[in-house]
Amino acid sequence: MARTALEPTTVLHPHPVLLVGTFGADGKPNLMAAAWGGICCSDPPCVAVSLREATLTYHNILHAKAFTIGIPSRKHVAAADYVGIVSGRDHDKFRDTGLTPLRSAKVNAPLAAELPFSLECTLFQHHKLGLHTIFIGEIVGFQADEDILGPRGLPDIEKTQAVLWGGLGNNHYFGIGERLGRAFSIGKNPR
Amino acid sequence: MARTALEPTTVLHPHPVLLVGTFGADGKPNLMAAAWGGICCSDPPCVAVSLREATLTYHNILHAKAFTIGIPSRKHVAAADYVGIVSGRDHDKFRDTGLTPLRSAKVNAPLAAELPFSLECTLFQHHKLGLHTIFIGEIVGFQADEDILGPRGLPDIEKTQAVLWGGLGNNHYFGIGERLGRAFSIGKNPR
Repeated sequence: MARTALEPTTVLHPHPVLLVGTFGADGKPNLMAAAWGGICCSDPPCVAVSLREATLTYHNILHAKAFTIGIPSRKHVAAADYVGIVSGRDHDKFRDTGLTPLRSAKVNAPLAAELPFSLECTLFQHHKLGLHTIFIGEIVGFQADEDILGPRGLPDIEKTQAVLWGGLGNNHYFGIGERLGRAFSIGKNPR
Repeated sequence: MARTALEPTTVLHPHPVLLVGTFGADGKPNLMAAAWGGICCSDPPCVAVSLREATLTYHNILHAKAFTIGIPSRKHVAAADYVGIVSGRDHDKFRDTGLTPLRSAKVNAPLAAELPFSLECTLFQHHKLGLHTIFIGEIVGFQADEDILGPRGLPDIEKTQAVLWGGLGNNHYFGIGERLGRAFSIGKNPR
């Protein structure tokens, strides 16, 4: 196999599909799709998402000091893509997708009722990196459908039917594939 | 469908499997697995990874001011799991897995030659969040196998055969599933 040096690029496999719920200063609920984020601390439990200042969500988070991160299922792929295409400045993205905004009981942000689970976050830290700012939310609430929970009472990826984004090199959404092995177990024979 | 409120938990679908390459102060190459990280800025191109202070990699990054993020393929799942189980303080994880350490030409860190692609990073920012600290690397180099590149010359997730971790609610590694639709396209009909 021949190795090659590419220009530095923002590709990593896989990217999640995160739906960020926020309220505007006018109280209007908004939803946007972001691929750059994920869990970033166990204690306190935190999740990160990176946003450009050009987005409405960037300003909504700074105003409300809160957001939600919802995880779409494969049946929500078109809705997730839509909320990543248009801006909440000129679209009511909940209405257009048919997703139902619910006010979080824990934080000043909406979540989409139909998604399998949502993390409810207060703004914990944010850091300007360059074109993107990383927003770190402390997870203070967590809502899930009962029927996607596994034996440990936590969301089970085989039940949520989660999706991922292929990234700049293969611009499709994909489902989750087959099991390859148990973590903290298959590595006992590392070769 | 019945919704339920769970205790705040660090679950999100999917988690990537990131192999973090560092040099110790003694020059020894190390590799660890991390699930909490991803791309976080387009300009400058940056990638984040969260680590506990208890890990050797945490100290290696602060010393060397550099790290690599390698993406495993499904054939590397056992090796990836292994480097997440044991510590580089008492194991030579490259030797144990049979992966070959290559010194990055761009940064003061090693990468595993057999992985489909690796991001080469200099330490750009780091922020203590709690038990975890988030390390943000500026991507200054990018190495890939030529045979995993797609039409745009970037790593193609269908060729890398990337893997993901199911998370706390389903502790398995999974492959990438089937295409569900094209991004920035399928959402034009959001319902």
